[in-house]
Amino acid sequence: MERVSYELIKREKYTGARLGILHTPHGDVELPNFMPVATQGTVKTLSPKDLEEIGVQIIVSNTYHLHLRPGEDLIEKAGGLHRFMGFKGAILTDSGGYQIYSLADLRTLTENKIVFKSHVDGAPITFTPEKVVEIQAKLGSDIAMILDWPTPYPSTYKDARFHMDLTTQWANYAKSFRDSYLNNVSLFAIVQGGTYEDLRIEHAKMLVEMNFDGYAIGGLALGEPKIERDNILEKVTPFLPEEKTRYLMGVGYPDDILSAVIMGVDLFDCVLPTRNARTGTVFTTQGELTIRNAAYKEDFTPLDPECTCYTCRNFSRSYLRHLFNAGEILGPRLATLHSLHFFITLMESIRNAIRGDYLIEFREDFLKKYSSSKVVDNPG
Amino acid sequence: MERVSYELIKREKYTGARLGILHTPHGDVELPNFMPVATQGTVKTLSPKDLEEIGVQIIVSNTYHLHLRPGEDLIEKAGGLHRFMGFKGAILTDSGGYQIYSLADLRTLTENKIVFKSHVDGAPITFTPEKVVEIQAKLGSDIAMILDWPTPYPSTYKDARFHMDLTTQWANYAKSFRDSYLNNVSLFAIVQGGTYEDLRIEHAKMLVEMNFDGYAIGGLALGEPKIERDNILEKVTPFLPEEKTRYLMGVGYPDDILSAVIMGVDLFDCVLPTRNARTGTVFTTQGELTIRNAAYKEDFTPLDPECTCYTCRNFSRSYLRHLFNAGEILGPRLATLHSLHFFITLMESIRNAIRGDYLIEFREDFLKKYSSSKVVDNPG
Repeated sequence: MERVSYELIKREKYTGARLGILHTPHGDVELPNFMPVATQGTVKTLSPKDLEEIGVQIIVSNTYHLHLRPGEDLIEKAGGLHRFMGFKGAILTDSGGYQIYSLADLRTLTENKIVFKSHVDGAPITFTPEKVVEIQAKLGSDIAMILDWPTPYPSTYKDARFHMDLTTQWANYAKSFRDSYLNNVSLFAIVQGGTYEDLRIEHAKMLVEMNFDGYAIGGLALGEPKIERDNILEKVTPFLPEEKTRYLMGVGYPDDILSAVIMGVDLFDCVLPTRNARTGTVFTTQGELTIRNAAYKEDFTPLDPECTCYTCRNFSRSYLRHLFNAGEILGPRLATLHSLHFFITLMESIRNAIRGDYLIEFREDFLKKYSSSKVVDNPG
Repeated sequence: MERVSYELIKREKYTGARLGILHTPHGDVELPNFMPVATQGTVKTLSPKDLEEIGVQIIVSNTYHLHLRPGEDLIEKAGGLHRFMGFKGAILTDSGGYQIYSLADLRTLTENKIVFKSHVDGAPITFTPEKVVEIQAKLGSDIAMILDWPTPYPSTYKDARFHMDLTTQWANYAKSFRDSYLNNVSLFAIVQGGTYEDLRIEHAKMLVEMNFDGYAIGGLALGEPKIERDNILEKVTPFLPEEKTRYLMGVGYPDDILSAVIMGVDLFDCVLPTRNARTGTVFTTQGELTIRNAAYKEDFTPLDPECTCYTCRNFSRSYLRHLFNAGEILGPRLATLHSLHFFITLMESIRNAIRGDYLIEFREDFLKKYSSSKVVDNPG
């Protein structure tokens, strides 16, 4: 298995947004792109065939969850995660740092390990920076992430530095381990530093010095205002290498993605399209739409009249509303299919706009139509 | 819309099992066949595309559930149930008699109506034999069922006669109403009579006299021993007309279906493949298989090595077990797809066996392999 590589196709004329290709052992990923979240080895409600039909090229799965259940040894025996879950595209796995931070009962945090209680059965689990790389190697991930320690928002400068320094230390351990024992594993580092520009820049420089296969920007989308997030992105991206993939973790809403692409970000992941769809809110070209809204009771138009997905080609808002009201699983499934199709199509449109040097225009048109969402959700 | 008609292709040489075609406004249904249950306007977890890929030609949906939610008027406005749910094949709708009997809080039962409380919101609902036909007409069902009053098992002779007489009365009302006002609606009668041979025969004769478009045998699969059920079928089927479809309601397990086909039954419906799949038990050529069984933890073979369905072509028992353990919706979805494929394929094999006059041989081979299920489920 070869390590991943990034190929820059062009920078957009007016914004500097990057059109590129991430070459992986499981195919080329056109960038900018969006990764649906497959936490437990499945994008919730969808089959791999659904993902292929939508045009998904890369997904993100979770080291933390897969380690707890069913375990990386089982997945390795199955022939790796791709084979286990039947997905032929690329898979990036998150390191578990964020999941431990947000889900687990933390027991011990030291300079070289985290001990936490499994949220599944309460058993104590130890993660080290090295072990986390090893787990991801067993999973057969196309891209492994270093174990990081996300900075909460808000954090004091001192706390932000502590989280950042710990992440640097762990990045070091992970990299040495990879270089010594698992040289075919692609490893991305994660830039921390909270909302402090100088820390972010310092951290980016340090990690770039260490020469990873790609760089993620972590610890954002944790509740900070969009303006602060955009400011950090604007400051930190110039310090990331031109020839490596840039991945903004956990982002986000369409307008967040558009801003980040303009600042030179390539790759995104977020639970928004899938999680919101399961509770009945979908993304459309006219904004978010809440399926259970009484206004859709006898609305026999598709979720999004401009959409070409299976859901919109075959089913009405009225039927979707019925499925959600009746508690039918097909509701979340069709809604998820639609919202992911929306995100994947958005990324394709963004790539076309970069290719044609009309990204600013595209963003304006997109957001103008998109912010008309209030009209869509008005009862009547 | 033309009414349905039955075409007898042949009777099997040794058993008299019937190979036929049910011509409907939504395509030909090869008989014998099995109807997946789409209670609320969806076969739980599956899309119409899934059903097409499995080869489903006809499904059964429920007047009772659709009347309560979203209501037949809405579905009529949507262009009928086929269009509302996006299914292009034939749809038979059950009349609601069985659902009221089993789900609702009964308030009043008279010679010409039932009043019951909705299990959704407790509202009082009145069903008459005429209204039930009208609802099914609005749904656009290819086949409507008369309102019946199922005989509980066990019942006294007197009770069985009461339920039967009420059903006859209602059949009369339904038929007159259809003949007068909705002449293009296909209407099947339902033979009751409990486990009393003479009542069953008497009822069959009376209903046949009234000349319906097809005949169902109801009030079975309610807990009576298989031997009693088979006995009733053997006695009653000779009194059903050769030139009409015979539908055994709520049946059943593969061996029940095989017995009934041999006694001249054409059509079946049952929640077994779908309901059991959702809780993790699937049908295979070697018997039932419980996915969560520890034996499958590292079993990387398909659910059924002989199966050609999407699930078996792409996923292992181990992965399915993981999905069920992790509470992932894809688990029930893939399991349902498999089990329905199994039933639809079984019906196809049965039709081939009738065509080739080897049905008895087929049954023997099938059941010999099928009853080896204990081996499949043995841990180890």
